[in-house]
Amino acid sequence: MNSGSSADLSLPATYPGGVNQFRSDGSLRHLLTLEGVPTSMIIGLLDTAQGFVRKIGKQRPALSQALHGVTVANLFTEPSTRTRVSFELAAKRLGADVVNLELQLSSRVKGESMLDTVCTLEALHVDVLVIRESEPGVLALVANNVAPHVSVLSAGEAHISHPTQGLLDALTVRQYKKRFDNLAIAIVGDIQHSRVARSAYQVFRALGVPDLRIVAPPALMPKPDEFTGCSRHATLKAGLKDADVVMMLRIQKERMTHASLPDADRYFSKYGLTPERLAVAKPDAIVMHPQPMNRGIEIASDVADGTQSVIRDQVSNGVAVRMAVLQTVMERVTAE
Amino acid sequence: MNSGSSADLSLPATYPGGVNQFRSDGSLRHLLTLEGVPTSMIIGLLDTAQGFVRKIGKQRPALSQALHGVTVANLFTEPSTRTRVSFELAAKRLGADVVNLELQLSSRVKGESMLDTVCTLEALHVDVLVIRESEPGVLALVANNVAPHVSVLSAGEAHISHPTQGLLDALTVRQYKKRFDNLAIAIVGDIQHSRVARSAYQVFRALGVPDLRIVAPPALMPKPDEFTGCSRHATLKAGLKDADVVMMLRIQKERMTHASLPDADRYFSKYGLTPERLAVAKPDAIVMHPQPMNRGIEIASDVADGTQSVIRDQVSNGVAVRMAVLQTVMERVTAE
Amino acid sequence: MNSGSSADLSLPATYPGGVNQFRSDGSLRHLLTLEGVPTSMIIGLLDTAQGFVRKIGKQRPALSQALHGVTVANLFTEPSTRTRVSFELAAKRLGADVVNLELQLSSRVKGESMLDTVCTLEALHVDVLVIRESEPGVLALVANNVAPHVSVLSAGEAHISHPTQGLLDALTVRQYKKRFDNLAIAIVGDIQHSRVARSAYQVFRALGVPDLRIVAPPALMPKPDEFTGCSRHATLKAGLKDADVVMMLRIQKERMTHASLPDADRYFSKYGLTPERLAVAKPDAIVMHPQPMNRGIEIASDVADGTQSVIRDQVSNGVAVRMAVLQTVMERVTAE
Repeated sequence: MNSGSSADLSLPATYPGGVNQFRSDGSLRHLLTLEGVPTSMIIGLLDTAQGFVRKIGKQRPALSQALHGVTVANLFTEPSTRTRVSFELAAKRLGADVVNLELQLSSRVKGESMLDTVCTLEALHVDVLVIRESEPGVLALVANNVAPHVSVLSAGEAHISHPTQGLLDALTVRQYKKRFDNLAIAIVGDIQHSRVARSAYQVFRALGVPDLRIVAPPALMPKPDEFTGCSRHATLKAGLKDADVVMMLRIQKERMTHASLPDADRYFSKYGLTPERLAVAKPDAIVMHPQPMNRGIEIASDVADGTQSVIRDQVSNGVAVRMAVLQTVMERVTAE
Repeated sequence: MNSGSSADLSLPATYPGGVNQFRSDGSLRHLLTLEGVPTSMIIGLLDTAQGFVRKIGKQRPALSQALHGVTVANLFTEPSTRTRVSFELAAKRLGADVVNLELQLSSRVKGESMLDTVCTLEALHVDVLVIRESEPGVLALVANNVAPHVSVLSAGEAHISHPTQGLLDALTVRQYKKRFDNLAIAIVGDIQHSRVARSAYQVFRALGVPDLRIVAPPALMPKPDEFTGCSRHATLKAGLKDADVVMMLRIQKERMTHASLPDADRYFSKYGLTPERLAVAKPDAIVMHPQPMNRGIEIASDVADGTQSVIRDQVSNGVAVRMAVLQTVMERVTAE
Repeated sequence: MNSGSSADLSLPATYPGGVNQFRSDGSLRHLLTLEGVPTSMIIGLLDTAQGFVRKIGKQRPALSQALHGVTVANLFTEPSTRTRVSFELAAKRLGADVVNLELQLSSRVKGESMLDTVCTLEALHVDVLVIRESEPGVLALVANNVAPHVSVLSAGEAHISHPTQGLLDALTVRQYKKRFDNLAIAIVGDIQHSRVARSAYQVFRALGVPDLRIVAPPALMPKPDEFTGCSRHATLKAGLKDADVVMMLRIQKERMTHASLPDADRYFSKYGLTPERLAVAKPDAIVMHPQPMNRGIEIASDVADGTQSVIRDQVSNGVAVRMAVLQTVMERVTAE
């Protein structure tokens, strides 16, 4: 699956449902997963995104009319204010019209209802569907059935994929570390349930990061056939040793009530990132978090707000990356 | 009621509350019901709408700045993502500013609260109020009390009226059948509770459709003094015979739990539109549905997605019709 | 607190949390409270707002591109359709991009979550945060921690402050009464819990109103150290005697269930504003209400819709005032 252009990526293709994200000329049409996206295209998206980056508080945001006349629909079936606003601003700053839809679809007829909704949006001349979805496979179903002129972008899918998050994480790392082929990157937390971790893994693999690590309590580790090539660590001390990048994940409190998991205090005492624990990483290591944070659970405020934190950059890069993706998938449309 | 210009329409005036939809020069100011709208004006709206139609997936949507500086408020007291988005895009593509309001008004003081809200919106220089309302009569109350510069458009009112749906249905029929004066149109389903059916009936009567039929189980038939001039049929076989147009309605599942009604499976077995049942209509009959569909209840997926289905066109025509209505009621304002 | 420029205002500085609303050059950066805002600046805001006023139903709204490229986020943690729409239209009519966020933050981590959300919005290049907040002090926390390029505007904070409401009330009074230094203004209702009353008190004090009165049942009177300089009255008859302006407040029905308070009927019989009671005020007295009204509880419909009511003007002035505040706090940004 995912077209022949995935040759340069050695990952097993596990994206559920299967989807061809490319047009026949090889250009990007959908973005549901970073799996199978050629490294050259990932780098191209990062370069385009970098062109949209403006210093927070020093410069006005990048504005263009590249998407004038284009309609973007944000279709969220689970609430996510931050990601929705990020996509909304990205589209507006490119001159697009944006409509927001919050859908509660009963799960029994979800796929079907989603397809009918999408069919409606197509007929309304919506060009881009930005979809957040808690059920794996619905996005592929949509992308595989949507009219040829429509692009589908994932704004987060179940525990599976969050490709624009992966790209913004990569962009942030590149801004601070310049290259990827000499980095040690540790991803810490609830790896098993994390779409952020999966997309980060995919993008960093594609970009040639040699030392990728996942750090989690045993109950939150993914199955052995996932995250192949990553070293696995049960303690921060081992996992963060000489790391260049420390990516913390949000821990779902619901998960901690589960019997096999410690409570919040005990989680923090073992896996919370404190300045002391961070000290085992390289002195210039950067700390990342996809937000929203549980301060005092997975991360200490000292670290979240400290000099090594690049969490703010991640957010800012998020708009730039989404502008780049929107502009890229609409390039042919707006050129007409 | 409904002004003297309703002379060319032989319907009894039943719109609750009574409302004059026209300015003193005869131009359209409000659109709450198609009752009393002169046939010439309906045709004018369809012509204007046709000018806004663009082929889905082949052409960019129509864009203009005709409503630059105009403010449209979508005021929905029951959720309706599709219709709200359709009005929102129609307004935005004409260059208007759009604000969305979702109001939960306690029913005890609904009319009063609605009038105060409307008064607020007037004072905010809102020009057009697009209102969806589950209680009959509230829209007329608003239209009768709103400031002279404000237009009120119905986005669906109780079981009473859904005029832009009626217009988009008429536009769709015209695109496929060219003329109305030789057509047999069957409306099928829960006629009694359907605003879609009522507005369709009104528009097709006004446009001179000679053979109008309603098809429903006895429990869902309207009272004898409504839908006058329509033939009534208890079976699809009788009602669809040689029809040019088959309009399916959405069945409310709540209604089926009612004792006198069959359950979903039994409804489908008797009134669901299957390819076999459609075969008694003319070979080039078109199939319509206002959406959202209950696939497998009132319509089989084979039919919904089949070659005779024009459901997608209906959606697309919806934006065009709403652009036409918005532009028409604002014509005098924007000409100033 | 509130910078040295508050010298010309004799109020005790009671705004919780403490905040400096001014830039080092004395220009307005935040607007959380009218406390400490120099009278000259208040008059300047009223003058700017007056320039944006257009006659309802006679003139098109004022439009400009002064805020082109500026992003305004409406961050509401309690629902308020009217104020949100007023700010939204004010921003759009100045050419800004607007995003709406509705946040439900658990109260345990509210301040913290709010700061993280605000930090996210900063990084998204949001320039103005318009915040409505039920918990006192959260706005000051935000303003004191926000990046230097961001302005924070209150859209209502707990029972503490509603500064744009105060300004629109002052603008409305000025339009009808021309000057402030000869007025008797009575504020009537649940003074104790009212942010509207507090901001009105502050603005009218700053503008030199000599005769300020508060009228309430004992249970709804504020503590003696608040509203200093106001006369206090237990009856409308005493409080409204020869008043030029009667400001009615919304009574929260929840409050009336409290033991020490009368029920709705008894409240109306004692404190509801009827034409008869209004008659003790000056013949040309104006009647104000911040909306939404409880007709028949704090105000009779005869009065709300009567010739002395200027409630509509208040709403319309609200957009003008918010345009003025937005333009003022962004002046330096957009001049760059």
